[in-house]
Amino acid sequence: MGAIQLRSFMKKSLGAKTLVFPTPVFVVGTYGKDGKPNVMTASWGGICCSQPPCVAVSLRKATYTHSNIVERRAFTISIPSEEHFKHADYFGLVSGRAEDKFATTGLTAARSELVDAPYVSEFGMVLECKLAHTFELGLHTQFVAYIMDVKVESGLLKADGNVDISQLKPVIFAPDSQAYHATGSFLGKAFSIGKM
Amino acid sequence: MGAIQLRSFMKKSLGAKTLVFPTPVFVVGTYGKDGKPNVMTASWGGICCSQPPCVAVSLRKATYTHSNIVERRAFTISIPSEEHFKHADYFGLVSGRAEDKFATTGLTAARSELVDAPYVSEFGMVLECKLAHTFELGLHTQFVAYIMDVKVESGLLKADGNVDISQLKPVIFAPDSQAYHATGSFLGKAFSIGKM
Repeated sequence: MGAIQLRSFMKKSLGAKTLVFPTPVFVVGTYGKDGKPNVMTASWGGICCSQPPCVAVSLRKATYTHSNIVERRAFTISIPSEEHFKHADYFGLVSGRAEDKFATTGLTAARSELVDAPYVSEFGMVLECKLAHTFELGLHTQFVAYIMDVKVESGLLKADGNVDISQLKPVIFAPDSQAYHATGSFLGKAFSIGKM
Repeated sequence: MGAIQLRSFMKKSLGAKTLVFPTPVFVVGTYGKDGKPNVMTASWGGICCSQPPCVAVSLRKATYTHSNIVERRAFTISIPSEEHFKHADYFGLVSGRAEDKFATTGLTAARSELVDAPYVSEFGMVLECKLAHTFELGLHTQFVAYIMDVKVESGLLKADGNVDISQLKPVIFAPDSQAYHATGSFLGKAFSIGKM
């Protein structure tokens, strides 16, 4: 620390664009007007408040899911594992107006008991969310929702109650190269390793 | 696809909590009232609009960075590589009111030419952001900002202009176990691999 820097830095400007690492792969579950369960994939989002626990997800107004959330004021976020990242990609490729994505994939729509929305039974982890705020930001509407519960497959939890990431294997999205990546190895404990 | 599911699913309720995977490690750079550069680490945030390109970051009102953003209406987000995750952790452990975090780490505060905020010169990637909206959500204030530019070290870009993730090595935060993880291997191309 404090040693003389021998490297020089030369940053290239990429312009005003939506690029950070990591971005998540959120599979957003909603019911349509006809009660049909639907899922779409979104990478613009993240936790946005600790108390009350809230998560944000941004969607274009043109999407089926957008109108479903406006109507039902609820959604779920299922977290896909490596095993299911191809399904998650499919969920982002086609509209629920055109296709029954659960029927096509053979995955199961489970009805949330807490919120008026379905989730993907086969995915290891789900957040059940009630709409709190709707912010119009431009092309995207940001939906901020209360996290009513987080549910995780029992087999994916460690003895200390935390999620075993090496078992859940959540996937990551890289916006510029439009690539999915795995979650990598453990590096260190937060609020600890940086003590100086 | 469509095969009979032979596994059964049993999800355990973890309660209303702030838990998704992945969450980012954003190193937020601001100037204090006295012009002193400061950085803090935040994991509540993400891209929130494509047009105009916007990013959100949520901070507690008690933080030094919160008051700096309210005052200057600008911040940067530096993305730490594996090489620097211990620095990122340190930035989240102490307040800029108490310590000069650049002096302690020996890292360099570079002045953004686009926004009134500093960034960490040694980190491979930075977003320069102008405040657009301030949303009070509870314990956290969500700052939504226009991304004015994204700058990346030339050596971290591939021939196609995209970031080489295997070189940038961005880190990920797991909220429940409070652990840092590496970005893992390439799994597949989005908007492609899921075609059915």
